[in-house]
Amino acid sequence: MKLHGYFRSSAAYRVRIALNLKGLTPQHLTHHLRKGEQTAPDYLALNPQGLVPTLEDDEGGVLTQSLAIIEWLDETHPTPPLLPLDAMHRAKARAFALAIACDIHPVQNLKVLARLRQLGVADDKVTEWAAWANREGLAACEKLIANEPGPFCFGEVPTIADLCLIPQLANARRFGVDVSVFPRLLKAETAAKAMQAFADAAPDKQPDAE
Amino acid sequence: MKLHGYFRSSAAYRVRIALNLKGLTPQHLTHHLRKGEQTAPDYLALNPQGLVPTLEDDEGGVLTQSLAIIEWLDETHPTPPLLPLDAMHRAKARAFALAIACDIHPVQNLKVLARLRQLGVADDKVTEWAAWANREGLAACEKLIANEPGPFCFGEVPTIADLCLIPQLANARRFGVDVSVFPRLLKAETAAKAMQAFADAAPDKQPDAE
Repeated sequence: MKLHGYFRSSAAYRVRIALNLKGLTPQHLTHHLRKGEQTAPDYLALNPQGLVPTLEDDEGGVLTQSLAIIEWLDETHPTPPLLPLDAMHRAKARAFALAIACDIHPVQNLKVLARLRQLGVADDKVTEWAAWANREGLAACEKLIANEPGPFCFGEVPTIADLCLIPQLANARRFGVDVSVFPRLLKAETAAKAMQAFADAAPDKQPDAE
Repeated sequence: MKLHGYFRSSAAYRVRIALNLKGLTPQHLTHHLRKGEQTAPDYLALNPQGLVPTLEDDEGGVLTQSLAIIEWLDETHPTPPLLPLDAMHRAKARAFALAIACDIHPVQNLKVLARLRQLGVADDKVTEWAAWANREGLAACEKLIANEPGPFCFGEVPTIADLCLIPQLANARRFGVDVSVFPRLLKAETAAKAMQAFADAAPDKQPDAE
């Protein structure tokens, strides 16, 4: 397997955690997003969105979109499962993951922030935009798991929800969001960061980290 | 079952199609997004993100996020399936759905466009922003299924990919995007619109349509 990623991409970070939990060790290929390497023709042929991650399997199959890759990993390598076993909890774990992957991350990604600057929005307002998306989105996430005992988002083992949460909390801090107001999210983060699979997937542990 | 939605919400539209395909007939409850009804305290208690749709099942379970709801419907009511049967095609259908649900729709939704106006961006630039998100995102979607014979996005029956595509094409047209440059997407749309389940889910067929 080959994982096309970038150390700071939180979507690639989600997939790195999943691969580590499954005990899989793909070859890592990096595409420097700030230098625009994700829009090189060879890469666009694999991933027409020009986004990371992309996973190539051993048969030449090409997978895009982090959550689709994680679901595929879970279907083809079921142990340990990355989704709860019953349908209602699966739905809640997926909804939490999507609340981050749809409603926080794309609103504050590199491409959208660049577009804001092109519209003439000043740098401090661009950062405040990114902070707003994280603050508002994570506040909803805190409520989504308020009644879940944990320590992870949904139970005693990590799920796709935690795979999305840990990278997003790193983004939120980078944009200056005070995450101490989200104690339930931090409880899940503490449990996750104690696991080697999460620690090894961190951006600053990647070979392409700057 | 109860579906909380809004006629023009493309996320609610996706779930309406899924329910119709499954032959399910929930009670429909509307929340007028432009009047801010989705931020009423009673609704936020169900859906902390203040977004539609929300699905309440017959046992009082509460489901949020359209793609999580569609996956739950597919797990609890398997016929007809809304995902291909083999893992690689499931991954490709999910990736296509996520390319819309993560990377187009949230970047051009009501909340983000309102935020742009708050930053002082002029109305015509706001519309151009929404058009850009649709144009760029749908161009990638066109490539994602270029080699799929169809007529639907992935095969001879609709999947979660088509459930996301049809509502997004409606949005794209509303923002003035020339969708004639996406012949493969339009082929899937033609196949979908010939089905009663899609036709009955259209925004202008809903009781709350204006």
